[in-house]
Amino acid sequence: MAGSMIRVAILGAGGLGKAAVRIIGMKKEMRLVAICDSSGFAYKKDGLSTKEILNLKYHVSVGDLSCGRRASDAIGEIINLSSKIDGVFVALPNLPNRFIPDVTRRFIDSNCPYVFTDALKRTGAVRLMFKLDKGLKKTKSVYITGCGATPGLLTAAAVIAAQSFIKVEDVNIRWGVGISNWEAYKATIREDIAHMPGYTVEKARRMSDGEVEKLLARTGGRLELHEMEHADDILLKRVGVVDSNNKVHVGGVMDTRSSKKPVSTTMTLTGITFEGKRSSHKFILGDETSMAANVIGPALGYLKRAIWLKERRLYGIFGSTEFMPMVVK
Amino acid sequence: MAGSMIRVAILGAGGLGKAAVRIIGMKKEMRLVAICDSSGFAYKKDGLSTKEILNLKYHVSVGDLSCGRRASDAIGEIINLSSKIDGVFVALPNLPNRFIPDVTRRFIDSNCPYVFTDALKRTGAVRLMFKLDKGLKKTKSVYITGCGATPGLLTAAAVIAAQSFIKVEDVNIRWGVGISNWEAYKATIREDIAHMPGYTVEKARRMSDGEVEKLLARTGGRLELHEMEHADDILLKRVGVVDSNNKVHVGGVMDTRSSKKPVSTTMTLTGITFEGKRSSHKFILGDETSMAANVIGPALGYLKRAIWLKERRLYGIFGSTEFMPMVVK
Repeated sequence: MAGSMIRVAILGAGGLGKAAVRIIGMKKEMRLVAICDSSGFAYKKDGLSTKEILNLKYHVSVGDLSCGRRASDAIGEIINLSSKIDGVFVALPNLPNRFIPDVTRRFIDSNCPYVFTDALKRTGAVRLMFKLDKGLKKTKSVYITGCGATPGLLTAAAVIAAQSFIKVEDVNIRWGVGISNWEAYKATIREDIAHMPGYTVEKARRMSDGEVEKLLARTGGRLELHEMEHADDILLKRVGVVDSNNKVHVGGVMDTRSSKKPVSTTMTLTGITFEGKRSSHKFILGDETSMAANVIGPALGYLKRAIWLKERRLYGIFGSTEFMPMVVK
Repeated sequence: MAGSMIRVAILGAGGLGKAAVRIIGMKKEMRLVAICDSSGFAYKKDGLSTKEILNLKYHVSVGDLSCGRRASDAIGEIINLSSKIDGVFVALPNLPNRFIPDVTRRFIDSNCPYVFTDALKRTGAVRLMFKLDKGLKKTKSVYITGCGATPGLLTAAAVIAAQSFIKVEDVNIRWGVGISNWEAYKATIREDIAHMPGYTVEKARRMSDGEVEKLLARTGGRLELHEMEHADDILLKRVGVVDSNNKVHVGGVMDTRSSKKPVSTTMTLTGITFEGKRSSHKFILGDETSMAANVIGPALGYLKRAIWLKERRLYGIFGSTEFMPMVVK
């Protein structure tokens, strides 16, 4: 890989997928060669046009790009490109929990080696992902899961922070996100709604845009969430930072009416040192960094690490707490 | 390694070495089997007594322990124990720059596989360490260098923080250390003095304890340092976080009269996001965590990672910015 171009495919062309298109367009080491959404796909060996994709209207499929094609099974079309892709960023909707694991299983069933990262959030979904280890190993594939902001950036910072302590008592992640155009992040917003009291994953997924608008009108455009089911818990338990899922707490405030963050996103890890002192390390994200910057940056950094792992024949599924993301130039 | 006991040797029995003894004594996964200082060594297969080592007076050699022996070449004695040791924590004085590289070369010359971490600080010393890559690979050894607090804990946090940005403009590390008994950290204090205007590594090393006392009396017990020659610069450049050593700044305040930190240790990484926004992520260490907790914790976490690398035949020398430290239970 050293010095060579990483050919990337993105599954999904919503808010996160499009942000990934834009960031990859700024990277010397990466080239976007394929993208798909629910009704089409596009592939170009020499790289897709960033500008053309970003100019697509929300409701228009990437299948309508100049080198795209409408397809009833767009993911199947990407799977067929195996040898032409070095890494896949899975930017599909996180709902339902089975969706991304099922898509991954389709890749495994193709028997081709693949490298993936995702920005999965829910504990239930990540738990399903870890069950794919055997299949991924069999096809000499590498998958790093939970590579967004939380889990991802903040969870990795928790692993670093844990080093100072003999025992970690609590990991508290509180995020603030401000977006001025929620329609660009329809799936993300529904995922957040699903964490609210009285809502379920299924109920949130079925809400019409009008119903989401109505809910946001009632809350002044803000969604405040506590004790979210986020996979930071199992990812930190997996590497021994905490001995129980209950010691990890994720919550946050989403403002859908302003791109200014309502609170600073902060990871606070509290533990006991070998001298018996209780203390907290904090990792605080700059307010000017957007959700897209904090999710896609790490996801691509982990994608480079996942390719590194594959080159060393270290196959299977890993969490974002297990490896350092690499810097993509 | 999974589930098995890691047999550790510590080179050096000063302030950091003794803190490592104490922390290893609290770990289920690690057993301290060997230690040495300039005039002796001790080895015990079933584990040395933490209590006995910690009860040694400052000027007494570990050679005087019940299972110790005075030796003119104590490091040579440890080298002879090759097959009985899984990992070596190098807690020798960082001065002069050649010292730890030369010791490592002796291990390489023994032709035995070894696994090491250190808490080296100076850029010049770490630069010499990276020249040992070929020799370490030849002997199927792994060495992770710069695994203390800075470089180490804070530098690794900078790699995580960098993920949100397209370009990193500045990494600023400002540490605060409070120690009430500077005599327990004689080498560390001299290293800090060597960074002060008008001092050199050689001059600081040659200072008598009385001269150090006199200097501290003049400054009210405080040492304030700017633009320290710390290897955070080359370790971050090596992984592409910065494109120039000049973008990394390390400074701090050491109070030798109080264990309370004079300032909170903070790593601030400033960069530009893909949207063109300038922002800063911060990693702030809790004031109640001591230098020993923030140096030894990471050094042992990286030692477990180094053993992981050796098990996967990934030999050679690496920086603390290249891998996630592991959690040692």
